[in-house]
Amino acid sequence: MNKLTSSIKEAVINSGLRDGMTVSFHHHLRNGDYVLNMVMEAISELGIRDLTVNASSLFDTHRPMKEHIKNGTVKSILTDYMSGELGRFISAGGMNSPVQFRTHGGRPCDIENGKTPIDVAFIAAPASDPMGNCTGKRGKSACGSLGYAIPDARNARHTVVITDELVPYPLIDWSIPETDVDQVVLVDSIGDPKGIVSGTTKITRDPIGLSMAMTAVDVIKASGLLKDGFSFQTGAGGASLAAAKYLKDVMLKENIRGSYGLGGITGYMVDMLNEGCFESLLDVQCFDLKAVESIRNNPKHREISGTHYASPEAKSSAVDSLDVVILGATEIDTDFNVNVHTDSNGRIMGGSGGHSDTAAGAKLAMIIAPLSRARLPIVTDHVTCISTPGSTIDVLVTQKGVAVNPKDRELHDRLVSAGIKVMDIRELKALAESISGVPEKPRFGDRIVADVIYRDGTVIDHIREVAED
Amino acid sequence: MNKLTSSIKEAVINSGLRDGMTVSFHHHLRNGDYVLNMVMEAISELGIRDLTVNASSLFDTHRPMKEHIKNGTVKSILTDYMSGELGRFISAGGMNSPVQFRTHGGRPCDIENGKTPIDVAFIAAPASDPMGNCTGKRGKSACGSLGYAIPDARNARHTVVITDELVPYPLIDWSIPETDVDQVVLVDSIGDPKGIVSGTTKITRDPIGLSMAMTAVDVIKASGLLKDGFSFQTGAGGASLAAAKYLKDVMLKENIRGSYGLGGITGYMVDMLNEGCFESLLDVQCFDLKAVESIRNNPKHREISGTHYASPEAKSSAVDSLDVVILGATEIDTDFNVNVHTDSNGRIMGGSGGHSDTAAGAKLAMIIAPLSRARLPIVTDHVTCISTPGSTIDVLVTQKGVAVNPKDRELHDRLVSAGIKVMDIRELKALAESISGVPEKPRFGDRIVADVIYRDGTVIDHIREVAED
Repeated sequence: MNKLTSSIKEAVINSGLRDGMTVSFHHHLRNGDYVLNMVMEAISELGIRDLTVNASSLFDTHRPMKEHIKNGTVKSILTDYMSGELGRFISAGGMNSPVQFRTHGGRPCDIENGKTPIDVAFIAAPASDPMGNCTGKRGKSACGSLGYAIPDARNARHTVVITDELVPYPLIDWSIPETDVDQVVLVDSIGDPKGIVSGTTKITRDPIGLSMAMTAVDVIKASGLLKDGFSFQTGAGGASLAAAKYLKDVMLKENIRGSYGLGGITGYMVDMLNEGCFESLLDVQCFDLKAVESIRNNPKHREISGTHYASPEAKSSAVDSLDVVILGATEIDTDFNVNVHTDSNGRIMGGSGGHSDTAAGAKLAMIIAPLSRARLPIVTDHVTCISTPGSTIDVLVTQKGVAVNPKDRELHDRLVSAGIKVMDIRELKALAESISGVPEKPRFGDRIVADVIYRDGTVIDHIREVAED
Repeated sequence: MNKLTSSIKEAVINSGLRDGMTVSFHHHLRNGDYVLNMVMEAISELGIRDLTVNASSLFDTHRPMKEHIKNGTVKSILTDYMSGELGRFISAGGMNSPVQFRTHGGRPCDIENGKTPIDVAFIAAPASDPMGNCTGKRGKSACGSLGYAIPDARNARHTVVITDELVPYPLIDWSIPETDVDQVVLVDSIGDPKGIVSGTTKITRDPIGLSMAMTAVDVIKASGLLKDGFSFQTGAGGASLAAAKYLKDVMLKENIRGSYGLGGITGYMVDMLNEGCFESLLDVQCFDLKAVESIRNNPKHREISGTHYASPEAKSSAVDSLDVVILGATEIDTDFNVNVHTDSNGRIMGGSGGHSDTAAGAKLAMIIAPLSRARLPIVTDHVTCISTPGSTIDVLVTQKGVAVNPKDRELHDRLVSAGIKVMDIRELKALAESISGVPEKPRFGDRIVADVIYRDGTVIDHIREVAED
């Protein structure tokens, strides 16, 4: 009369997982996640081989994946983001078949349209009832939204919920309903709370970052978009958060009531909601404890699925109505193409996540980045890897000036009229190189180690092998 | 930048609806619904013909459907319930192809598994934003849950939301997300509030009904199921509501904390939630204003989709965990088969709704019915139409005694031990006939006017033509 299974290994056996199939994972437990490693260990011990792993993101904590690749358990990886440790392994040619990078919108899209079917989805759920109604909002490993996991659970042939807090039926604030769940496994712990969410996310104290944040808000004001109904997304980086804080001050001072904040949600966005800058928050992933508490208690702070966030084949998604997004970059080139997949040496250390989805959807897509980082210029002739096409980027904000994409003439004129220091992006490149020198181009091998699949399904770039240092 | 279309007719044209396709409707506006008639009128005016109409229920207010059948706009009807006026028309042979009756669980199941695909779903939404995030909880035509419409919107090729209250994006408490919506049409009114929900639902004052309600609660107590964690569904009929009221008194007195109330929800179930008899309500349809207000404001009162309510092909649904359901009957036979589709004359005046879904899922499925109604015995040798198979019914409660299905020996013994007057169902039949006489069997024609499709997809009965009086 319930779906409880005694162990992960038992659940894998019951799922009918066989050689060559696809398993999926989501990343709301971030670098604190235990579930992916526990499941892959069980699968490896069962001798199942040649799997495709479709994970919404992979963090350093998932380093055992290297062994599973080496021993043949894992044959292919599909993901939207991969942090440095696994990234270096892949870049050094650790895998035979190229990693497929998608976006946070493209991934649920391809799961739903059947291009990347999932055989068994494993859901890390901070609270579940015995029938699989589950949520991330409660429990000792609470992570808030389970947005990216919702399409996996709905579309997988078989879905296993793994939880460390079993509650009586029915868990009423489910993110994923029992209708999508085959088995529930209770384990001691699904993650390390310290790694799941930061206690608090902090704005930068770096003066360059603060200066860029102020300029970013000036650009938003000058764009004409900052008025009642305004909608906004920003990242969790220090300068992006500082921009949110300055923006809040402006909105409160000018009594502007925005419509919604979107995205990965931080405490700064929660403050904006609570202080009346937004009517609501649409949350696909929580970045800190304040966001988790807010999504648990405030009905105006609502979880959205990855589909609702950004799928390009949904009948619409939240990014389609977005006014402004502030995004980061490891490189941006003079055509405004942005790289967030590799470092300047060409090694994988990131991924698009929602970068290119929000850039495509937002009326104003802004990159905020210092001219150089670790003595390497950020602005370059050609990015090492195209993550987000320049055609979807409107403006670059640096500490030395702002560059507007030539396609945005009206925006250019608005910024100039507002007294913002607007420069040609080639001037910014020259300035960066005058400070940091012209960097050597990475030396790539011939072999392709990853494909970058844009949200419309086209492969917009390949990432090639780079020898280890 | 939004999905607003100026008129229903325009929306039908944009949808690509053509001859022979399928349109769908839901019935949360009940006998107050204007939307089905407005849409069918527009379709008829456009000269589109031979449509299949898949409506979760049809009420007397939908009587213009008779004209659409006669003029060839409508060729087939799929529904879970049909009230008397349209029922008599169908029973009299008004349609060439048989109506397909499904259950509230079987309908979403067959929509999802592709047996009954929908080309264009029309969603009557009491509030929507311009991108189609919509809800039934708010607006001048508020109806509460939109549970039955959720699978339609998700699975239809094209979905049109029709609303009389447009709110700014994003409507945050959506039942149906924008991801599933192609067009939004604003109209003056989607329904007559007086017909949408009763102001209040009232328990019976009839002494026979009250007596049966008390006996029903005695049976529940004796069954052993009434303990902490208890879950319960009951209908909106007077005696069923009276049973809910008596049950509440018992639960409060004995300090029993149930888990959930399910179903079509009335104010009586809301009282049980608010007074602590249940932890939560799972609501696929609201029957009265108190239920609408509760689902709008109380997070423990949550909307569920038709799939989550009762789909037999979901990985589980709420009916699977149900302890007790109280159901009605127009007839029950000595094998405990129940008819809720036709009157004793064999004319269509109802349908399964969630009857057979909850009977199949609940541990204790109870029929509550007077021995005779309008001088016709309720207990009979063979029901005129099998709506719910006797194998899923556990007990019949009448004002003269209680009959237990022979398959439930333990239940029988528990009731006897509790001092409940248990009789053989054949004794009850004899008693009914001694009071009301043996009724004449309906005189059917040869022609089949409707098929009764059980929740597992099998046709369990046919309904044949009956001449008009």
